[in-house]
Amino acid sequence: MAESIEKETGRVEAFSDGVFAIAITLLVLEFKVPHMPAGANGRELVLALLKLWPSMIAFLGSFIAILIMWINHHGLFRMIYKTDSPFLFANGFMLLMVTFVPFPTAVLAEYLGTPGERVAAAFYIGTFVVTSIAYNIFWATTTKRRLLKHNIPDAFVLRVRNGYRFGLVVYIASTLLALWNASVGLATCLSLWIYWSVFEYRAE
Amino acid sequence: MAESIEKETGRVEAFSDGVFAIAITLLVLEFKVPHMPAGANGRELVLALLKLWPSMIAFLGSFIAILIMWINHHGLFRMIYKTDSPFLFANGFMLLMVTFVPFPTAVLAEYLGTPGERVAAAFYIGTFVVTSIAYNIFWATTTKRRLLKHNIPDAFVLRVRNGYRFGLVVYIASTLLALWNASVGLATCLSLWIYWSVFEYRAE
Amino acid sequence: MAESIEKETGRVEAFSDGVFAIAITLLVLEFKVPHMPAGANGRELVLALLKLWPSMIAFLGSFIAILIMWINHHGLFRMIYKTDSPFLFANGFMLLMVTFVPFPTAVLAEYLGTPGERVAAAFYIGTFVVTSIAYNIFWATTTKRRLLKHNIPDAFVLRVRNGYRFGLVVYIASTLLALWNASVGLATCLSLWIYWSVFEYRAE
Amino acid sequence: MAESIEKETGRVEAFSDGVFAIAITLLVLEFKVPHMPAGANGRELVLALLKLWPSMIAFLGSFIAILIMWINHHGLFRMIYKTDSPFLFANGFMLLMVTFVPFPTAVLAEYLGTPGERVAAAFYIGTFVVTSIAYNIFWATTTKRRLLKHNIPDAFVLRVRNGYRFGLVVYIASTLLALWNASVGLATCLSLWIYWSVFEYRAE
Repeated sequence: MAESIEKETGRVEAFSDGVFAIAITLLVLEFKVPHMPAGANGRELVLALLKLWPSMIAFLGSFIAILIMWINHHGLFRMIYKTDSPFLFANGFMLLMVTFVPFPTAVLAEYLGTPGERVAAAFYIGTFVVTSIAYNIFWATTTKRRLLKHNIPDAFVLRVRNGYRFGLVVYIASTLLALWNASVGLATCLSLWIYWSVFEYRAE
Repeated sequence: MAESIEKETGRVEAFSDGVFAIAITLLVLEFKVPHMPAGANGRELVLALLKLWPSMIAFLGSFIAILIMWINHHGLFRMIYKTDSPFLFANGFMLLMVTFVPFPTAVLAEYLGTPGERVAAAFYIGTFVVTSIAYNIFWATTTKRRLLKHNIPDAFVLRVRNGYRFGLVVYIASTLLALWNASVGLATCLSLWIYWSVFEYRAE
Repeated sequence: MAESIEKETGRVEAFSDGVFAIAITLLVLEFKVPHMPAGANGRELVLALLKLWPSMIAFLGSFIAILIMWINHHGLFRMIYKTDSPFLFANGFMLLMVTFVPFPTAVLAEYLGTPGERVAAAFYIGTFVVTSIAYNIFWATTTKRRLLKHNIPDAFVLRVRNGYRFGLVVYIASTLLALWNASVGLATCLSLWIYWSVFEYRAE
Repeated sequence: MAESIEKETGRVEAFSDGVFAIAITLLVLEFKVPHMPAGANGRELVLALLKLWPSMIAFLGSFIAILIMWINHHGLFRMIYKTDSPFLFANGFMLLMVTFVPFPTAVLAEYLGTPGERVAAAFYIGTFVVTSIAYNIFWATTTKRRLLKHNIPDAFVLRVRNGYRFGLVVYIASTLLALWNASVGLATCLSLWIYWSVFEYRAE
């Protein structure tokens, strides 16, 4: 019976891993090959490629974001020993947000550097606000329903919860900042990811 | 020998899981970045994004549908201990329908809110009619050919069969309703998914 | 050591399974949502969807083809207990052809029913001629380099070899027939797939 | 505890394998179906397909490149028995480059045979320069932080390091050559891949 439960967790995790891997690889489709008149020379192609800097920023940002989300998801699942229905719903909500990321990424790539960039940046970071809510719900569900392994200390549960709440606050702040200035909002968001990358790994 | 059979089931399941994970992640490609004149400001971008509500409905609906289909597929496979050729054909038919879902989703997203929405909604829900037929065939094949584990009670087999037949009837009714009114048809279909989500998890 | 080799085979197979699952799911991208003037009504959408019959034929054909190729690949790997470099090259050649299938599928969908359909059908079936060559090379490599499990009888090795040679001959004939009449060529090709589906499963 | 660490390595590898499998299968999306006037005949379609030779070269090159990168990645992971944070960052950098490959591939396919081909080829090979830097960083991280299994001889560690440095030098040279003549640069790059294919497998 225990084996059966273990296997069930494994399948959910394998499916989730697949979704993360596909979403992170689909990001590249957002790059559009610059089309130019047939006689365009090398210099013109260089300029056209350099004009793709918003695509590059959006691509790098989303790659880092999904990678952190995967590492996080992965770390959470290592502490879980059984699943139930609200847990699967909460996990489904997280996956929904992961599969959605390529779209706001493409919107940001299209409008960064244009008058619409503040809205595009707010839409982009706003996606991560909802994603953050999904992670908060996931952790609340997991802990309240006692799905964690028995050797996970309460202090750790609290630290994760506070970390996720902190993330949500920073995301909301970044979204508001982006409505005032796109670059400042995106930089705040990126700072969070860099902080998480370092913090995450130190903590392990 | 038993190990070999077990492994075989595992591979079919892993391949199927991959198809489900990819199909659910490809749904996002249906969102088209709104293209606007170069000088478009933030307000115009907000309006353009809000106009994507049909894409959002189609995306959410199909995400929920594929997720339920995966959970279902997954639950069925846990009760199966061996495979044979008609079983693999039936499974192939289900996967065919899963990979097809992104196309009617894109059609619905394009025509919801236009005069063609009733046809688009009927085409969309009609896809799930065929998917439902595939699930009914799958279950009939699995039970008739005695591929289930020995500890599965007959009452359970019957309950699943009736559940799938009920689903097929509701899908057909939703398709007909959609030809009369797209929103009513889609709402009926969504009700089925919500009912299944709750029922499914309670039953486990 | 044996474990290490076993694991190696498993990884190659898992990677190959991923490629098959993605290629079969990407086929749906070949369907293009019909774009119509804003005031188009339901009847016009029905007609536009019905005009997609070439896409449907191409989609169904390629789905069946890749599914058979996967089942086949899968069956072959169950008989193999170790790998070496020419084996990995031969497997890579097969995967190259699998990932390529969505393109001739899209070409067939675009030109079926137009004056260019004979060339499109020949290009489509011609892709499977090369795929068939890849499978023949794979089997020749596997048997000549003694990578099979010891309990595989010589009669079986011969039967597989003859089956692959037979497939290659039928594919070449179908390609030539398609240059004369697209429908006849495609029907011949489809007959082979149906024959294989039945034969394959009976044999197991 | 050792089991837990082993499992962790397995998950990272499975995620990476997924990314490689998806990136290699997405390459086919770079092929664009030639659109022609409705009355176009077979001869015109043949000519249109033949004009896709740059797409074919770019597709084959990138397929071989990603396949070699996967085999390489795979071989490295077999020698590693634990992970830590810099290791995961280095692996993430490699995956970033793998997911990016389809874009320069599409650029090369678009501009090969046009006046912009030298820039396109340099951009294409330049991507592999950065990829090569990622592999060099990965190996330096792995060895310096003592993540290798204990039975890996120092001579082997050195040979891999020198192989990666050699690759980096050849890639830089190929990029510079491509700026002078696209074909020469690409041929140099291809020679490296062929050399690696043979060398790699002999060494194992």
